[in-house]
Amino acid sequence: MATADDIRATVRKYIDAVGSGSAADIVALYREDATVEDPVGSEPHVGRAAILAFYQAIEPLERSTELFSVRVAGNSAAFSFRVVTKFGEQTFTLDPIDVMTFDEDARITGMRAFWSQDDMVTG
Amino acid sequence: MATADDIRATVRKYIDAVGSGSAADIVALYREDATVEDPVGSEPHVGRAAILAFYQAIEPLERSTELFSVRVAGNSAAFSFRVVTKFGEQTFTLDPIDVMTFDEDARITGMRAFWSQDDMVTG
Repeated sequence: MATADDIRATVRKYIDAVGSGSAADIVALYREDATVEDPVGSEPHVGRAAILAFYQAIEPLERSTELFSVRVAGNSAAFSFRVVTKFGEQTFTLDPIDVMTFDEDARITGMRAFWSQDDMVTG
Repeated sequence: MATADDIRATVRKYIDAVGSGSAADIVALYREDATVEDPVGSEPHVGRAAILAFYQAIEPLERSTELFSVRVAGNSAAFSFRVVTKFGEQTFTLDPIDVMTFDEDARITGMRAFWSQDDMVTG
């Protein structure tokens, strides 16, 4: 099992990559057979190719992220963060809570994002 | 499916009951066949009798709670909060992130608590 420190390091890399990396940078943190359910209740993206396509949607946008808190338990973590996306003159601010599972090398095996449109702040 | 407002109301009742209610008050928010995994990775408590026994451990302690943020997605919610427990002269402060699922009446069907001993602050 990955250590809590390894898991926290992957979470930080993930938040950094979502904030300023490419879709490929983000997907490199996932295991080949990983799943992404974002938001929870939507159809999961299964496998790296599908996950890459999902993150390519945000790749051209100006983004920034901030990690608030991480809680590790066993091979899982829950964390709250902020992602700010700019689209022309509009700014979209969202503070999701994500839950991830990890393999023995602290690669992400599953991600579930808890948020809804109600939580999106437009400015 | 329960509405997001119904789910948020149950989360608030849960945090209030953990802060100042009896074990029975807490368990009344759970469906009969619910499961509790606290912390994630430990053996789940299955059914109201087992869940009651779990919460009876904190019943005699002086407690307070504060809800930080709630994110609802479909029939699920993730939320961060603080629970402060007093035991004699010692104070234990813990900020977990919990994930819950809910039935159509916004009763809790499952709870998973993300935290570890490292997150416990003793004062």
